[in-house]
Amino acid sequence: MSLNTPSLPSAKVIHVDTRGAVILEEESPETRDSRGIYLPNYIEPISHIAVDVGGSLAKVVYFTRSPEPPSSPSVVATRGSDSSNSSLSTPRSISPSDDTASASGVSASSGPSTSKQNGALTPLVLEQPHATAPSALANGLLHDSLLRRTAAVAAVQHFPGGSLNFERFETDDIDACVSFIQALIERSAQVNGVPLAEMRRGVKIMATGGGAHRFYELFKDTLHVEVRREDEMECLIEGLKFITLIPDEVYFFSDELIQSVAHPNATPSVTAAPLPPAASALVPAPSPTISYPVPSLAGSSAQTPVLERPSPDPPKYGVTFESNPTPQLPCLLVNIGSGVSIIKVDEDGAFERVSGTSLGGGTLWGLLSLLTPATTFDEMLAFSEKGDNSTVDMLVGDIYGQDYSKLGLKSTMIASTFGKVFKKGGEKGTFPAEDISKSLLYAMSNNIGQIAYMNAEKYNLDRIYFGGSFIRGHAATIATLSYAIRFWSKGTKRALFLRHEGFLGSIGAWIRNIDPATELLDGVSALHSERS
Amino acid sequence: MSLNTPSLPSAKVIHVDTRGAVILEEESPETRDSRGIYLPNYIEPISHIAVDVGGSLAKVVYFTRSPEPPSSPSVVATRGSDSSNSSLSTPRSISPSDDTASASGVSASSGPSTSKQNGALTPLVLEQPHATAPSALANGLLHDSLLRRTAAVAAVQHFPGGSLNFERFETDDIDACVSFIQALIERSAQVNGVPLAEMRRGVKIMATGGGAHRFYELFKDTLHVEVRREDEMECLIEGLKFITLIPDEVYFFSDELIQSVAHPNATPSVTAAPLPPAASALVPAPSPTISYPVPSLAGSSAQTPVLERPSPDPPKYGVTFESNPTPQLPCLLVNIGSGVSIIKVDEDGAFERVSGTSLGGGTLWGLLSLLTPATTFDEMLAFSEKGDNSTVDMLVGDIYGQDYSKLGLKSTMIASTFGKVFKKGGEKGTFPAEDISKSLLYAMSNNIGQIAYMNAEKYNLDRIYFGGSFIRGHAATIATLSYAIRFWSKGTKRALFLRHEGFLGSIGAWIRNIDPATELLDGVSALHSERS
Repeated sequence: MSLNTPSLPSAKVIHVDTRGAVILEEESPETRDSRGIYLPNYIEPISHIAVDVGGSLAKVVYFTRSPEPPSSPSVVATRGSDSSNSSLSTPRSISPSDDTASASGVSASSGPSTSKQNGALTPLVLEQPHATAPSALANGLLHDSLLRRTAAVAAVQHFPGGSLNFERFETDDIDACVSFIQALIERSAQVNGVPLAEMRRGVKIMATGGGAHRFYELFKDTLHVEVRREDEMECLIEGLKFITLIPDEVYFFSDELIQSVAHPNATPSVTAAPLPPAASALVPAPSPTISYPVPSLAGSSAQTPVLERPSPDPPKYGVTFESNPTPQLPCLLVNIGSGVSIIKVDEDGAFERVSGTSLGGGTLWGLLSLLTPATTFDEMLAFSEKGDNSTVDMLVGDIYGQDYSKLGLKSTMIASTFGKVFKKGGEKGTFPAEDISKSLLYAMSNNIGQIAYMNAEKYNLDRIYFGGSFIRGHAATIATLSYAIRFWSKGTKRALFLRHEGFLGSIGAWIRNIDPATELLDGVSALHSERS
Repeated sequence: MSLNTPSLPSAKVIHVDTRGAVILEEESPETRDSRGIYLPNYIEPISHIAVDVGGSLAKVVYFTRSPEPPSSPSVVATRGSDSSNSSLSTPRSISPSDDTASASGVSASSGPSTSKQNGALTPLVLEQPHATAPSALANGLLHDSLLRRTAAVAAVQHFPGGSLNFERFETDDIDACVSFIQALIERSAQVNGVPLAEMRRGVKIMATGGGAHRFYELFKDTLHVEVRREDEMECLIEGLKFITLIPDEVYFFSDELIQSVAHPNATPSVTAAPLPPAASALVPAPSPTISYPVPSLAGSSAQTPVLERPSPDPPKYGVTFESNPTPQLPCLLVNIGSGVSIIKVDEDGAFERVSGTSLGGGTLWGLLSLLTPATTFDEMLAFSEKGDNSTVDMLVGDIYGQDYSKLGLKSTMIASTFGKVFKKGGEKGTFPAEDISKSLLYAMSNNIGQIAYMNAEKYNLDRIYFGGSFIRGHAATIATLSYAIRFWSKGTKRALFLRHEGFLGSIGAWIRNIDPATELLDGVSALHSERS
């Protein structure tokens, strides 16, 4: 099997051709990280559904074929960054939906629990030249561009292009996930005009995450398809390696951040100032970036550069998308789900879970669900945006009354999270939900950033990827994590984020569709060398 | 000035002779860490009061003279380890009060806010041979053994022996602290028969901590004595170096722990088993230790040794006291107050604050004050002892349904603190205060242990001292911190605890009574070499 060119379709190996891959527009802020990825050159027809069942969320990935990008949506796509759509429950996010100029909308109804009309899976039977031609297509269920049939099945066989689709469900409501997959399989059989039993023979579920073990029987007995369990860490790493090749998938705070914090203001307060003109030259930014006003950390160049420790109000900086991705190994992957796993990945793809912490997304959501009226993640994040954590946090200034400069501490830094809450004598104060939310968001993010940094330093890694469903494109979280990394590393390491952050495991499970005897790594490495 | 022997008293340098030092019995569990330290050989008469004002607590240290250990107390000392005294508000603690056989009780009323009749400060005037003899002693205010006077003031001058006394106040109630000091000064003047103004001339306040700056004017203007501000970190380190020389001050979990976890049971559950006989030979334990039954982690010697990650129910192990202390540098000091400071100390005593975290004592008390009915630290700790954190925490077993053994994780390990609390749809559960308390105590302790370990590893330090007022001799906290260090370091590093954990800064401030021109370090180093 030649590994140097995208080979002719083989049932055994998935060579995922990511050339020309395009991230589709988001449908709503809720599904911000579930945008489809259109792969115009991908040839292999597959019918694999990957499911990654974690502590809180079950993530589903599946591929549907179409030669052109999905066109006019049946539901108007919501622009996540459009401030006119903002409301209490829609946190402002770093949404690049303005940027993906080439993609058009997808057809989908919003919300993962509704059946998405994203196309259908392809049954294996269509690959065989002698197969019967499909019966009349059902109207209204498909894009008109999807699955254009011709009598020559050979054309179908080599018909490139299709989309990776992403769905999310609550693990506590795993039945909804199973029902969705069931409906997908049944609809696909219908659309392709094949009996359900045949459709099922060509469908395989790749299950990973803890729930792959917990729910193995459920999937198997309800869906009547083959279910394969895949190792969670291996899937995470495979997913990372794959997804970082998609243009505009990876993003980070621009280099202006480094420039600006290298010349901090002498006084703790910050005021607005224009971007230093030289800084923009540092950032090769062919893709448009979203810029925010930069508070004045410039000036005082005579002062020794001191990086601002993660402070109550991190400045807001431009986001840069990695539009020409290159191989990203070695690196550290910090997967923030209910809990946190920290995995080091070597240059050759070998990996090891080296650390973790139990203080993760589950901790923050759990604490805020008891301490505030918020009932959803986005409500909690919305609260945090309005809060002033200094009413609950003890700052360096509260203890010392001045900077503790020779220790590199500033009076605005957080000395003790929630340090102002306990009052002797049992007097229980009441604190605004917004302040509590901000304090705990900072606390969890700073802590994860610190532990992540220490591991990156230990293993001499400069790139730190943050995965998992915790971040949700939320500006303050991204800022805090970026700051923590830059503070501790003095700007030598970089925090990197992923638009499909929560789907690393499921993407990895999806591409691991191989015979045990085949070398997947060879194929992926070949893909890497083609692109670099 | 000769540095090789305890020199003749000089007004400029305190040579603190710790030979024969004895930690006095505790008065009550509340003041467990405030036991006096009797120094029978200490010669220098001083009138210095050290105050360390932190974010939550103000700690006071002062020395009073007496040639013999304080005898029969005016208030019967409570034995903290006596289970018959246990109640909801008295957490079981590792209290070594049974062990200090030689000391007798101290006279004191319990509670820091009551005026303690611990003796009096010595005015400088008594040092001068031509000073007038003191007038009649006031009865009922003194121990009969305290301050035996003779006409020959020279005898007074070289009269060895006295006690270091410790008091604690709330920083929010700093006036109580000031009043206490005022009363101490006034009483001392009275007892010594000198005018208040003369007494004040011989009293100096050494103030450290953040509050040294905040409350400088308050101290100065109310007490009318000289107030000197001392650097907090320097005081912490000085205090550490000094206090670790006191016999039975330092304690740690015995080496049986290392032996036992090196041969873990194959199954996650643990059952009681007798101590391995060989293990006791590892521990040179001239002082009595308090032993607890050792759960069975022995057996399965064929298995690769895996250290139990901090689990919901850490086994309980014997506590060993360092009765023949040796110099303890280099080391890492982890000071857990409202927040956490991590300081590395080199062999020569040079130190640097290298890290810290805002998730400290203030965080735990603050969270528990809002999430439980508890109104005091000890109530919160009592709750935690009864709790089952698995109702609120997501364990590895909850996610995977089995051990994730190849990652070194066991199903009983905590994957996500509070991971079970958030329910989609806004349904807010109620959880027992005990379970919440245990979960958050573990979370904070494990996190501090992990960050402490990473710093110890980075700087190649094996000894990790935990200071600050957070631990309070609480068994679960000590166990969790010890476990975290041993888990991450695979048994190569040791967590060490201090009975006067909260007083490092104030002790350090107390011994820093020197002229700027004098080298304190030389004196202390000489003291070290004498003892080793």
